[in-house]
Amino acid sequence: MKKIEKERGSVFCGTLVWSILREVLSQQKPSKVFVLVDTNTKTHCLPTLEKQFPKDLSYQIITIPAGEKNKTISTCTNVWQQLSDLEADRNSLLINLGGGVVTDLGGFVASTFKRGIEFINIPTSLLAMVDASVGGKNGVDLGHLKNQVGVIRNPLSVFVFVEFLATLPKAEITSGYAEMLKHGLIASETYWNKLKNFDVSNPAAAEQFIWESIEIKNTVVTKDPTEKNFRKTLNYGHTLGHAIESYCLKNSDKQPLLHGEAIAIGMVLANYLSSELKKFPKKKLQQTTAIFLSIYGCYDFTENDVEKIIELLKFDKKNTDGNVNFVLLEDFSSYAIDQQVDNELIRSAFNFYKNFKI
Amino acid sequence: MKKIEKERGSVFCGTLVWSILREVLSQQKPSKVFVLVDTNTKTHCLPTLEKQFPKDLSYQIITIPAGEKNKTISTCTNVWQQLSDLEADRNSLLINLGGGVVTDLGGFVASTFKRGIEFINIPTSLLAMVDASVGGKNGVDLGHLKNQVGVIRNPLSVFVFVEFLATLPKAEITSGYAEMLKHGLIASETYWNKLKNFDVSNPAAAEQFIWESIEIKNTVVTKDPTEKNFRKTLNYGHTLGHAIESYCLKNSDKQPLLHGEAIAIGMVLANYLSSELKKFPKKKLQQTTAIFLSIYGCYDFTENDVEKIIELLKFDKKNTDGNVNFVLLEDFSSYAIDQQVDNELIRSAFNFYKNFKI
Repeated sequence: MKKIEKERGSVFCGTLVWSILREVLSQQKPSKVFVLVDTNTKTHCLPTLEKQFPKDLSYQIITIPAGEKNKTISTCTNVWQQLSDLEADRNSLLINLGGGVVTDLGGFVASTFKRGIEFINIPTSLLAMVDASVGGKNGVDLGHLKNQVGVIRNPLSVFVFVEFLATLPKAEITSGYAEMLKHGLIASETYWNKLKNFDVSNPAAAEQFIWESIEIKNTVVTKDPTEKNFRKTLNYGHTLGHAIESYCLKNSDKQPLLHGEAIAIGMVLANYLSSELKKFPKKKLQQTTAIFLSIYGCYDFTENDVEKIIELLKFDKKNTDGNVNFVLLEDFSSYAIDQQVDNELIRSAFNFYKNFKI
Repeated sequence: MKKIEKERGSVFCGTLVWSILREVLSQQKPSKVFVLVDTNTKTHCLPTLEKQFPKDLSYQIITIPAGEKNKTISTCTNVWQQLSDLEADRNSLLINLGGGVVTDLGGFVASTFKRGIEFINIPTSLLAMVDASVGGKNGVDLGHLKNQVGVIRNPLSVFVFVEFLATLPKAEITSGYAEMLKHGLIASETYWNKLKNFDVSNPAAAEQFIWESIEIKNTVVTKDPTEKNFRKTLNYGHTLGHAIESYCLKNSDKQPLLHGEAIAIGMVLANYLSSELKKFPKKKLQQTTAIFLSIYGCYDFTENDVEKIIELLKFDKKNTDGNVNFVLLEDFSSYAIDQQVDNELIRSAFNFYKNFKI
């Protein structure tokens, strides 16, 4: 059993998660229990959870359509309305069972329904396990801009049950894996080097890797909860990655990218910028780029795409006073925050990416 | 100059408010300033504020339609989108200039835009001055249910400028006055007795009364910020009052009621319930009812209206475990919280109200 215990936002992982979930339910004594699922987790994960519920637990299911395009205020309104229709009160509990869309949206809905009800997150995607399980960020997209509306509030607890990963398509695993690679880059070269052995078909071993990522993120968030400094490193690769993700979501003629796929491109670009501006070693730039491209392939960006993506950077939440702020690396686990980068150098980074030969 | 200073949510009142506002702006150094107004305050209050802004301040105006029916998620989406289009970042500041709809909605929008930007409230209605200026509650309605979606977060500061009251229709003053009467009931019979001298045509004297209400509310909120106990008294008259307000908002054939007008009815009913269940003195019940009815008149409720209002009670945010929780009074400033009341007694309260002869 692995656990990080806090007053709010404890994370539990391992075979005992279900008995701890039952214990939390019995201590919390919610007046009503609601389970938020999407159309995928309703089929693939809900039956597993239901088997683990106390026999006498009465609960109701709220279902949202799957997919990032539904992570909207409009979906929130639908869930708020259902909670209201089902007579949820302030002592009700919302259990979010799903990937990042369900945990981000469900966390926001719970944090704002009647000015805040309790919620529990049970992440079912690799991305949600290693990224959304710690830190308390929640929210939804506004148009094509990611996570523009939300709050920071920890769930009551988080339960990580690695067996759910078996229900995921391979692309979803690869997407979540990008955040694990990020944890290696910003915090531990040793972890980065070990990560090539990550294999979800062996849940016990996979759990060790996932837990290491959760611990890295938890260390960062605990040291700097309000994101003044160190926590900004979690944004590594995300400045360009988010803009790329938004751009491809918005333009139906572009091949869609999962979050982690966009962030993987963002990290190649950030590594290049780091090597140009912060002396990130060239050899490591070559090695890491080869690994990213071998896993994620090379996405086709036209010059026009690149200009539009640069244009989108100004909407990044981390920006202040009109500056686009990048996190850069001097080396693995050695960072510089609030770095400004010329658009010309960003264009060079895209050229480096497009012309890289594995 | 009157002030309540806190780390967040300081309240300032008096002629020096504008110089303090300029000081706060100069200390805060927001990257951008946005002023949220409604179609009324844009005309009647914004020019006064603009005259007081530092000469070199650059800011943008966001306007929402006036009226409680626009206190919706849909209006929020509109404001979030405008902030995004105008490239608001995390260091931007939102100044909410208006009545409760503007300060409640603006506070919620600011608390959730990019997971929270700073905001300042400048209440322009009596209700917003005496009620919304302290306590940090914000939010919007969901359908016809009041304040179902929101969070608790204090503004950076609140500036109360009593001269704005001159811009209000009389009904709006009467509506806000109901909350002041509530402060008398729950906290001070002396204040209740003095309140008959309240007169907005004399701003200096009115300011004293308004400040006394703000101080009463501040004492309550400071003693019990998380609403476990004492703060619930601020809900006096609101359990039935909110249901009455929602019902009249929802039914276009009923004469619409302002918030305070509905709460005034709720307080007459609560005083009756208090006299039946908590020995609130009969004589004071007669006296207070006569005052409420002389100010607010008697609203016409059919038996069917009463049943529908009772039905709506179950949506009250203060309810837990299926119980409708009332605050009742043993006397002025002597309260009992979490009281359950039979529907039959609620019907009697409406009968008392309908048949009362001044």
